[in-house]
Amino acid sequence: MKGIRLSLFGFGNVGKATAEVLLEKEAFFRERYGLKFRVVSIADTSGVVWLPEGIDLKEALMVKETFGKLSAWTNDYEVYSFTPEEAVKEIDAEVVIDVTNDRNAHEWHLAALKDGKAVVTSNKPPLAFHYSELMEEAERRNLPYLFEATVMAGTPIITLLRDGLKGDTVERIEAVLNATTTFILSQMERGLEFEEALRKAQGLGIAERDPGGDVLGIDAGYKATILHCLAFGPITFDEAEVRGIVEVTPGEMERAKGKGKTVRLIARVENGKVTVEPREVPLNSPLAVESHENAAMIRTDLLGELVIRGAGAGLKETASGVVSDVIKAALGLRRN
Amino acid sequence: MKGIRLSLFGFGNVGKATAEVLLEKEAFFRERYGLKFRVVSIADTSGVVWLPEGIDLKEALMVKETFGKLSAWTNDYEVYSFTPEEAVKEIDAEVVIDVTNDRNAHEWHLAALKDGKAVVTSNKPPLAFHYSELMEEAERRNLPYLFEATVMAGTPIITLLRDGLKGDTVERIEAVLNATTTFILSQMERGLEFEEALRKAQGLGIAERDPGGDVLGIDAGYKATILHCLAFGPITFDEAEVRGIVEVTPGEMERAKGKGKTVRLIARVENGKVTVEPREVPLNSPLAVESHENAAMIRTDLLGELVIRGAGAGLKETASGVVSDVIKAALGLRRN
Repeated sequence: MKGIRLSLFGFGNVGKATAEVLLEKEAFFRERYGLKFRVVSIADTSGVVWLPEGIDLKEALMVKETFGKLSAWTNDYEVYSFTPEEAVKEIDAEVVIDVTNDRNAHEWHLAALKDGKAVVTSNKPPLAFHYSELMEEAERRNLPYLFEATVMAGTPIITLLRDGLKGDTVERIEAVLNATTTFILSQMERGLEFEEALRKAQGLGIAERDPGGDVLGIDAGYKATILHCLAFGPITFDEAEVRGIVEVTPGEMERAKGKGKTVRLIARVENGKVTVEPREVPLNSPLAVESHENAAMIRTDLLGELVIRGAGAGLKETASGVVSDVIKAALGLRRN
Repeated sequence: MKGIRLSLFGFGNVGKATAEVLLEKEAFFRERYGLKFRVVSIADTSGVVWLPEGIDLKEALMVKETFGKLSAWTNDYEVYSFTPEEAVKEIDAEVVIDVTNDRNAHEWHLAALKDGKAVVTSNKPPLAFHYSELMEEAERRNLPYLFEATVMAGTPIITLLRDGLKGDTVERIEAVLNATTTFILSQMERGLEFEEALRKAQGLGIAERDPGGDVLGIDAGYKATILHCLAFGPITFDEAEVRGIVEVTPGEMERAKGKGKTVRLIARVENGKVTVEPREVPLNSPLAVESHENAAMIRTDLLGELVIRGAGAGLKETASGVVSDVIKAALGLRRN
């Protein structure tokens, strides 16, 4: 069995979780799909480790765990200081995996496709700003360009919209797509001010030190933009109307409670229109999620209302989406 | 644009709804997928109407509506008395659609595959008893064999399990897969005896005159068996442990209510094990569905718990699944 060569960009939390799943479920992938994976390169911000015969993932994880960076791994491996573009060009791989936060990654996604490589990404800005360009290039080359983990972690809403519902016309999607804001709003339900709730979330590692992407609704906006591209056709984040949860007050939470409701950051996606804003939702609504769950209500002409609900964050939950796409890419390439 | 030739078996409620969707959304399919469909034959219990140039679906629906049977349509069309096997063999089509209740349809599904035709089915017994044989034949011939509408109508749980979650190992599925029993149990919550609730369901056309398939749990058992095949590998309905709702009493409903619960017919699918039986579920559980909704909770190693909820019955809701599969089959054939 020839190993499918993977080139992994990003070795933070999601990158490590992806490597762990590839390592731990090796036998499962072989037995279930007849697939064997060989990670030929791993890039973090310190450099690129590259070994065409395949990197020992267990060691890579240990080095990262111990030293915090791959560039410390100099006794066994050559560490290169490639830019992502250079790495994509130099390194012979069948699937490029982007689990970075690189806002300009669309450039090297395109380079990868032009070079005949499939792309799997959990990185949202490339899709939220360059959907058409990326999909057209992928189609032209007949290459997989997959992004399940960009929205709702591994919960397969992308598969559902891409491969299911082919006969239906989607009319509207309403969804909770960001778990950090759900946590903060849940704390505010208990009487905390926004700032206190945010600090608590940061203390628990749920919100980042720079929380703007979450609390301003940008993360949810990226995701809603991606859902629009799938359900209605291309749009960019620039066209989305986004308002975060910064101005929500405990008083508003209290008033919602009095009506049997709560407040969640709701993304609404309609044809030509993407909005993200805090909205009251009934407590028995599928959108009244708690904890790290996301949920989407999809309304279509034939089916009526469809709900999908599941993990919207988490490391192995996000790795689930990345690895599912890696498997699809590999099966797709084998088929071509 | 060359039309994809479809051969429709079954022209009852689901068959008519399928024809209506094909007719009404013709422009959508052409614009979205570049697909045009040509229905070259329609079979009901009275005979087979066959016209290689394509049948006028509007007329076919009118004839069926007016006379209740296709064989009345003799002024314009030849009506043949083929068996399904003969029809599959004689009629040149690219996709065979089975929306019948023929328990032995696996035989002509296999004949269709052997003849190079894709198969789309909403008919459950072929899969619940002959999954391996059918899938192996389809794989050997590299032909689509699709069955979204067999479980949860068009709610895309089949797509989700087949095309999503590739990296995950499913641990358990718990689901409400039959809407008729939900209706009857909902009535029993309000104090009706089983027999009264059943008669009410029959009066409203929700339960059939011969309600055994639903109330004995056979329909849910077929569906759970199909989910097992997808999530864990082949099994047949003969191995399923099925108990229906016939013995549920208003007293049991009352006791459940006292505990903040209700009773639903729950299918549980684990590796090697399929059970269907009435169970208490908390009122805030995703399984405490009402009306014609179905729901499934899927537990996996990486994602944790995933819920999909949507229509589990209904005519255009079932046609949604059939037509989605017809589109996939057409796109798949074009790709090959």
